Amino acid sequence: MNVSILGCGRWASFHAWYAHHIGHKVTVWGRENSTNLKNLITTHKNEYLTLPQDINFTYNLNTALNFADIIIISISSQQLRNLAKQINETNLYQNKTFILCMKGIEVSTGKRLSEVLTEELHGSYNVGVWVGPGHVQDFLQGIPNCMVISANNNEISKKIIQIFSSDLIRFYYSKDLIGTEIGAAAKNVIGIAAGMLDGMHYTSLKGALMARGTHELSNLIKALGGNGMTIYGLSHLGDYEATLFSPYSNNRRFGEDFVQNKPFNKLAEGVSTTEALLKMANEYKIELPICTTINKIIIDHKDPKQELLNLFMRPLKAE
Amino acid sequence: MNVSILGCGRWASFHAWYAHHIGHKVTVWGRENSTNLKNLITTHKNEYLTLPQDINFTYNLNTALNFADIIIISISSQQLRNLAKQINETNLYQNKTFILCMKGIEVSTGKRLSEVLTEELHGSYNVGVWVGPGHVQDFLQGIPNCMVISANNNEISKKIIQIFSSDLIRFYYSKDLIGTEIGAAAKNVIGIAAGMLDGMHYTSLKGALMARGTHELSNLIKALGGNGMTIYGLSHLGDYEATLFSPYSNNRRFGEDFVQNKPFNKLAEGVSTTEALLKMANEYKIELPICTTINKIIIDHKDPKQELLNLFMRPLKAE
Repeated sequence: MNVSILGCGRWASFHAWYAHHIGHKVTVWGRENSTNLKNLITTHKNEYLTLPQDINFTYNLNTALNFADIIIISISSQQLRNLAKQINETNLYQNKTFILCMKGIEVSTGKRLSEVLTEELHGSYNVGVWVGPGHVQDFLQGIPNCMVISANNNEISKKIIQIFSSDLIRFYYSKDLIGTEIGAAAKNVIGIAAGMLDGMHYTSLKGALMARGTHELSNLIKALGGNGMTIYGLSHLGDYEATLFSPYSNNRRFGEDFVQNKPFNKLAEGVSTTEALLKMANEYKIELPICTTINKIIIDHKDPKQELLNLFMRPLKAE
Repeated sequence: MNVSILGCGRWASFHAWYAHHIGHKVTVWGRENSTNLKNLITTHKNEYLTLPQDINFTYNLNTALNFADIIIISISSQQLRNLAKQINETNLYQNKTFILCMKGIEVSTGKRLSEVLTEELHGSYNVGVWVGPGHVQDFLQGIPNCMVISANNNEISKKIIQIFSSDLIRFYYSKDLIGTEIGAAAKNVIGIAAGMLDGMHYTSLKGALMARGTHELSNLIKALGGNGMTIYGLSHLGDYEATLFSPYSNNRRFGEDFVQNKPFNKLAEGVSTTEALLKMANEYKIELPICTTINKIIIDHKDPKQELLNLFMRPLKAE
């Protein structure tokens, strides 16, 4: 069937490749001034992959929305509300299914991405979230992985899974959008913490980080009305290999460089997610010791070694 | 205070070093024919560490039991019942506290190690379990970690923690002996599975392994009467860094070598633990897909690639 991809970065272009790979017709949309899309149109490739010649590209949002009933969105999280407003203006989305293939929380509001989308779009349409582990490079080499589709209604998830299942990706489904979206965004935060431990040569504390990180986020998700067990599934814990243990993980790398005083181009996405999580935690009176520590180190410029030791070496406590 | 260590292998000698390091007087016991103890007596060192001159060594179990009220046991799991019978014969253990610093399940009975000990010892004494992450090499370099003490009674755990806390090890405590002991033993099983994935170049599936492995073991622990959340603590998930991601992990290495048809000296400890877990699962009618797959590959000589793909790429399922 037809699938449109809104976005043309690394992960969006992977989704274009994947949808085509399993037999769908694909249109990729990018903003007017997108250099990513310009390069894809010219060369049909980027630094990660080459896209087949029969994938369509467009700068026209109406064209992309008209092309397909299945609309994958994969852009920078903080840009989602703007794009959603634009989509709403077209009024070309009734009865369509949107799939958010992105991780993050809107910092200005502390809202989850599916909340942002449904605040801006009106009428009748479906929303699903597609997250979980997987390196683009591995998928291209035929190495399979498991991912998760989450939607308020299992029937929506199952429909999405039927369209996108293959030997390369095996899906689980979850009705807990709160837990899935918070967990997917928060793995970048734990990734930064993992990088900080690597940078201080405390790599062996990453085991304790995994146990304590999942625990504090589970408490937050429960307070928000989600399922405390979702954090231990594919959207968060299942993504730790790619985030906490990969030299290529952007957030892990950022944490390592930061504590070693190495230069970095810009703050990693997990930094704004940390801020958003701490806002939520404050509102719901939940303690997030790991997020608090990351914030102290990055924003308040506290001593990383002292803060990380304080975090892990606190006094006697039940698990 | 005085501490006796029963055992003189790698982990036992670390405990001797650590107890001395934090100011206790230490006696180390080994069996009559132990080459480990013979070497320690001669050189005061092994391939991992050097022990101070004022640590005592003895082949006499009565001497070790008389020396201290705190008795650490760190030997091969399948030998525990024999040692417990010997200890029982001395009747020199009333009102003492035994701490099991070892991981495993008695294969012939499917019993946890604290069960084995209490079946053989009579009268009045305390039993605690001390497990969790930490590499000997890291501790010796001053890199701290978090570990867990578990006992039926939190007062016993807190007493042990007071005796052994330091800047190097920060303890949590847990009343769930079932979850702690099963989790500590089972991390070797997940370590073998991780090695198999590495060996088949499916390293990126280790994320899914972490999510699904904890899930199936949590189900088993609940069926056994333990707390399903304990698996997500330091005794199991918290030990994944050292087990699933370390090139030095014996069980991970074994799994990798096995699927690559490389020679190995002997089956890793996780192999017998897998057998013991499957016996329990059968008795309690619990499915353990990962344990079953490892068993099929190692014992039934099924094709690793096919079995691992079957395991992770099964049809549509809720998390």
